[in-house]
Amino acid sequence: MADIERVIMPGVTHWHSPRFYAYFPTANSYPAIVADMLSDAIACIGFSWIASPACTELEVVMLDWLGKMLGLPEEFLACSGGKAGGVIQGTASEATLVALLGAKARAIRQAKEEHPDWTDYEIISKLIAYASQQAHSSVERAGLLGGVTFRNLPTDEKFRLRGDTLQEAIQKDRDAGLIPFYVVATLGTTSSCAFDVLTEIGPVCNKENVWLHIDAAYAGSAFICPEYRYLMEGIECADSFNFNPHKWLLVTFDCSAMWLKDPSDVINAFNVDPLYLKHDQQGSAPDYRHWQIPLGRRFRALKLWFVMRLYGKNHLQAHIRKQIELAHEFEALVLSDDRFEIVAEVLMGLVCFRLKGPNDLNEALLKRINGNGKIHLVPSKIKDTYFLRLAVCSRFTESADIVSSWQEIKQLTTLLMEEKKH
Amino acid sequence: MADIERVIMPGVTHWHSPRFYAYFPTANSYPAIVADMLSDAIACIGFSWIASPACTELEVVMLDWLGKMLGLPEEFLACSGGKAGGVIQGTASEATLVALLGAKARAIRQAKEEHPDWTDYEIISKLIAYASQQAHSSVERAGLLGGVTFRNLPTDEKFRLRGDTLQEAIQKDRDAGLIPFYVVATLGTTSSCAFDVLTEIGPVCNKENVWLHIDAAYAGSAFICPEYRYLMEGIECADSFNFNPHKWLLVTFDCSAMWLKDPSDVINAFNVDPLYLKHDQQGSAPDYRHWQIPLGRRFRALKLWFVMRLYGKNHLQAHIRKQIELAHEFEALVLSDDRFEIVAEVLMGLVCFRLKGPNDLNEALLKRINGNGKIHLVPSKIKDTYFLRLAVCSRFTESADIVSSWQEIKQLTTLLMEEKKH
Repeated sequence: MADIERVIMPGVTHWHSPRFYAYFPTANSYPAIVADMLSDAIACIGFSWIASPACTELEVVMLDWLGKMLGLPEEFLACSGGKAGGVIQGTASEATLVALLGAKARAIRQAKEEHPDWTDYEIISKLIAYASQQAHSSVERAGLLGGVTFRNLPTDEKFRLRGDTLQEAIQKDRDAGLIPFYVVATLGTTSSCAFDVLTEIGPVCNKENVWLHIDAAYAGSAFICPEYRYLMEGIECADSFNFNPHKWLLVTFDCSAMWLKDPSDVINAFNVDPLYLKHDQQGSAPDYRHWQIPLGRRFRALKLWFVMRLYGKNHLQAHIRKQIELAHEFEALVLSDDRFEIVAEVLMGLVCFRLKGPNDLNEALLKRINGNGKIHLVPSKIKDTYFLRLAVCSRFTESADIVSSWQEIKQLTTLLMEEKKH
Repeated sequence: MADIERVIMPGVTHWHSPRFYAYFPTANSYPAIVADMLSDAIACIGFSWIASPACTELEVVMLDWLGKMLGLPEEFLACSGGKAGGVIQGTASEATLVALLGAKARAIRQAKEEHPDWTDYEIISKLIAYASQQAHSSVERAGLLGGVTFRNLPTDEKFRLRGDTLQEAIQKDRDAGLIPFYVVATLGTTSSCAFDVLTEIGPVCNKENVWLHIDAAYAGSAFICPEYRYLMEGIECADSFNFNPHKWLLVTFDCSAMWLKDPSDVINAFNVDPLYLKHDQQGSAPDYRHWQIPLGRRFRALKLWFVMRLYGKNHLQAHIRKQIELAHEFEALVLSDDRFEIVAEVLMGLVCFRLKGPNDLNEALLKRINGNGKIHLVPSKIKDTYFLRLAVCSRFTESADIVSSWQEIKQLTTLLMEEKKH
């Protein structure tokens, strides 16, 4: 343990420091840690129901609880009695890839019905997936991994993908004899926390028979607060929905919650079922190995159970609301200084801001900020505009941290401006 | 905590019961659990070096330590000074898929150099991967996920893939204008713990310019004992090697160790590098997100460090040797009863056995065994021969457990035989 302090801690980036504002939050809480300890102690591998029934069954129930807490439409939940249900993936990247592979399997199956003479490879070469230019890098990467073409579509002035843009792109591809098959809509982009307009995108996807996957990795947690659900209107059109309780809902990494209205295509796409993995109860409960890329899986539903029971909906809502409030507090401070501008509407816990003026000025400022070691930010760039991102990350961040962090930024800005003058 | 006992434990399959013999082991130990607690407490996300330098750097060093403990050729290790090195994947399934995607990228690149007019899809439609019929289900699944054709090649009388069989298959495909690009050799198959003959397969792969990936998920841990290294002779021909410390080396799930001689094709195949993930030190340390399917990753190297330091090589070797000895003890008991036969040579901790006679007799016996609830086995089948697998799994299994488990099997057999007579 002494070596942890000596060797490890000096090289750790402190994601839970109250003044860590980089990337997006990664969650942490005592209930989640205790649940992980139990999971490590039980140490079962839940690849099939029989390999540890409680591991599978608790996951089915927890994803229903969580889905209800978010206000997901009932057709995503296992309790609806259909094929639907949730599953814990490791990361949102995997959820995007799993949905893409399901959509690909469905598209191949449907194209073969219409064109029995086409080979799989011919069909795959025609498949087109879509996301906004602001989608996360893992979306483009899912296309690379899945071996299909992705189109990154332009966004509106609020960095949102709109229905018309999607409709046009799909029509253009259909006219060229291609097969639009998959759309990823982002609720809460990484660069600026923009929300694609689902009420427009959803109907286009349904009309065009295109699988709609929703990536709400960060912002999805906010839907436990009813006042933010307007941002997911249109979700009823989606085939799959994903968000990361391990980002903003106090559940330690990894716990990425994904729901599928109809998992059949995902399950059938990867289904290899050797005798040593078969069991008598197949079909009566999910064998989650068919829902994911890996075979093995830990008992992660325990973390969800512990966090939901020990905090309860009210405390989880309070956590989300507090962090959004802190972001608005920082936004107000930025707006109070006319050297700065806000780059994107602040809806969640992320504030995108910059010094008015050229990009290199902002790059220089960020270098000073991170070099000074008191707070940590990462930048982003949209349409050639470079800006700084302040994401309220830590559960320990308080108003005093926001105020002193702003002081730090202001002081470094003043110094920088003075040096520029000389 | 009371609800854990009431709700969860009755539905848990006890993988660490001394009489759990199903599947393969999943590891557990106090040092690993403590390291996981620390990992949960630090709760950094190690997708890039800068996101937590210690997380990346400890992983680089631990994979070198582990590789040396196994006696891997130096060209797999980061300390060799080249591009090579190790990475912790979640599961062997992911390692097989990552290697396949790297091999696919390399094959496409090379085919394009020779045939600049071919499209990616044309090339992909010609790609052929190979593994033995005894390879794990995740190997075939990697083919499905990666969208390429896999050939399951026949094995010899010891259920091993041989060089001639592979050479013939490759030649036949080349003659048909196809592009052999990837071979998965298994060291320790799931059904019977057979070892493909690397000394034959390796040279064929090298001569044919085909990526050789070695899946030693279970048996790889045994290579820390020099007396078992003869089973990995030929490994110097491989491009990538993988085994699961989380199976047999006392490190809790998940921790699947993978080494790549040259990770460039893997890294370049998936590389999407947005500004918010870039940093100043790129290139001087691995950004492990490029080596894996997910983006996020936990601080899993801590588990390896704790287990290697607290047990030391000697105690880890003793653990492996003891479990293999217990398997031989069980083998001797089976051989002492002439109603039974051993189905495959016992090399590691797995004993494959059956009642002489028809499959349904063995199916009936297994049903009795598992139904009785004292011990747990799963079956397998090779070339229409159904058999029972007893894998020494738990760290708590002792000779007395082996003896009483054999008593249980014998008694249930006698009962079954008597009932059959009536």
